[in-house]
Amino acid sequence: MSSYELVYYNSRGYAEPIRILFNLSGIEFKDTRLAAGTPEFAAALKRSPGGCLPSLVLDGNRVVCQSLAITRYVASLTDYKGRTAEDTLYVNMFIETLYDLIARYDEVVKEKDQNIKAKKKEGAYESYFPVYLSKLEKMLSAQSGPFILGDRMTWGDIVIMSFLELKQNPEYGRADLLSNFPKLAAQYRGVIEEPGVKRWSQL
Amino acid sequence: MSSYELVYYNSRGYAEPIRILFNLSGIEFKDTRLAAGTPEFAAALKRSPGGCLPSLVLDGNRVVCQSLAITRYVASLTDYKGRTAEDTLYVNMFIETLYDLIARYDEVVKEKDQNIKAKKKEGAYESYFPVYLSKLEKMLSAQSGPFILGDRMTWGDIVIMSFLELKQNPEYGRADLLSNFPKLAAQYRGVIEEPGVKRWSQL
Repeated sequence: MSSYELVYYNSRGYAEPIRILFNLSGIEFKDTRLAAGTPEFAAALKRSPGGCLPSLVLDGNRVVCQSLAITRYVASLTDYKGRTAEDTLYVNMFIETLYDLIARYDEVVKEKDQNIKAKKKEGAYESYFPVYLSKLEKMLSAQSGPFILGDRMTWGDIVIMSFLELKQNPEYGRADLLSNFPKLAAQYRGVIEEPGVKRWSQL
Repeated sequence: MSSYELVYYNSRGYAEPIRILFNLSGIEFKDTRLAAGTPEFAAALKRSPGGCLPSLVLDGNRVVCQSLAITRYVASLTDYKGRTAEDTLYVNMFIETLYDLIARYDEVVKEKDQNIKAKKKEGAYESYFPVYLSKLEKMLSAQSGPFILGDRMTWGDIVIMSFLELKQNPEYGRADLLSNFPKLAAQYRGVIEEPGVKRWSQL
């Protein structure tokens, strides 16, 4: 049996869907949470092939990075993967669409001037957030719901929930983010009310 | 047997790795190439769940989009997929890293002012292109080469080749892009010299 160590900041961020997948599936993993600026953090960055976190240490010696690559890998070990090539295609279509939005929002994340950053953030929620959320809403409307594949939750739903949770936090986004997107709101509720996810979030 | 129609502009772009995978594997597909501005093009955009191309029409009725999702799907039908969960993890790690660069470069693609665009492009090749190419080079150096998984070419190598081909074209990038990256150069050569890829590129 393989051993897994997930290395990230002490926050949810891009590691949270991976932690949830491990937890839901009962796969043991070491949940290493490092504070930026510590020697351990610097060492973890250096050890990561891409110089970024989260990273996953396999069997104590092989280190890989990239959150989506790790999420897909862990999902593939569990029952939260797509079971057929077409299922996986649909899940990936949703996730790549979400990541188009995340890539677009990078202009806000990377902006150093706090005034410009605030303006760009405001603009993002006015202009392209609704565009991408509409795409996801439309895709969900074509399925039976509440999840991407109907009544079976997959890693894709968990990744989307994790993003929407952050962006509905007024500190990072807007509390009313989903008010015009009933299908996305139902998907979100479906994930956070899933008993295993609920248990994990209350730990 | 399923039927496949790939819909895109009449250019390589994000559709080319998908065309190559179909071609290498002898899977028949309809290679629909549309000119922007035509009614057919507008109809294809409207039919795409995410409103973008490439799209893939499955059996004449189900339409999916997102180039990487489609690439992964077609790869999964062929021998150019990762054969194990770990193989797939490694391929995905490379691809997500490449797509971090593509996402970053979006600031150039999206810029409308031609002077600012030219400056941003110049800056990209001076600053962050080398950073991301170094990450990929380092990742390749940890493998036996020339491909991500050693001597077996996968869809990931084809996606990277397709990007590097475009970016070594002086019109879109820099001819000497890979001069400091011998492993990436070897991977690139490995893909373009693969007999099936060579045959396709000469069609």
